Amino acid sequence: MTAAADRAAFSAENCSVARTLAIVGEKWTLLVLREAFYGVRRFSEFQAHLGIARNLLTARLATLVDHGLLDRQTYQDPNSRARQEYRLTTKGRDLFPALIALMQWGDTYLADDAGPAVVVAHNDCGTAVHVELRCAHDHGPLTARDTHPTPGPGALPTP
Amino acid sequence: MTAAADRAAFSAENCSVARTLAIVGEKWTLLVLREAFYGVRRFSEFQAHLGIARNLLTARLATLVDHGLLDRQTYQDPNSRARQEYRLTTKGRDLFPALIALMQWGDTYLADDAGPAVVVAHNDCGTAVHVELRCAHDHGPLTARDTHPTPGPGALPTP
Repeated sequence: MTAAADRAAFSAENCSVARTLAIVGEKWTLLVLREAFYGVRRFSEFQAHLGIARNLLTARLATLVDHGLLDRQTYQDPNSRARQEYRLTTKGRDLFPALIALMQWGDTYLADDAGPAVVVAHNDCGTAVHVELRCAHDHGPLTARDTHPTPGPGALPTP
Repeated sequence: MTAAADRAAFSAENCSVARTLAIVGEKWTLLVLREAFYGVRRFSEFQAHLGIARNLLTARLATLVDHGLLDRQTYQDPNSRARQEYRLTTKGRDLFPALIALMQWGDTYLADDAGPAVVVAHNDCGTAVHVELRCAHDHGPLTARDTHPTPGPGALPTP
């Protein structure tokens, strides 16, 4: 973005980044979603992969269910008692580009010398996926410097 | 991603998402970066836009400087004492797609009825920017369902 952006033109009050972070802006919440994208559905599996305390995991799953990112369903294996599983909703799956964008940055700046732990691949061709910034006219890939913020239709005056 | 992903094929230990969240996985840290992308550079301006306590802002700015996402520089207006300002480094600017991806999700699911507070526009053509998921063969835009995780070059065995 340009340094000269007129920051006073819009309020931070109804910012979509802030509202999103109020739901998912916490390490464990995004890591629970990471596991869900990796195909994990059961409490015990989330716990095993995350090494998170049970009470914390219970709270984070409840937040994600309450906000409609995960759907809690009952399943029953033969000869077992009924259990709960957690599946991504469309709303949850739509956070995938944000998770890939975070992974991409971590792969660039924080990976081990050997390289990234995980490569997310396109099912059809097997090559690695990445996020790109493009505009409505399909110019891109763009960087922050190619952009500037403008007050949107819901912009509130600065306090 | 596919539900059948073999989650046990790789450890979560050296995950780039987790490492990224250890730095920026906290509401204030990402909101400080949001303001930096909006052109804010001075402590007093960060504080005014974020309404964050001074000690918290000091700590968050220090984290971002320590990890090389912001650069602390001294500036001096005529007839004023020297002050610090904070500028995004390349490493910091490279988090922009993640912030746009979070904003995009919030615009879809959490915006006011009137619409988003902010539209980030391409400097050249003025249309709104968005993130897209594409593969190395440029197939896309893709969704989570079009992808699957594979162990990367740095994959560790599961514990």
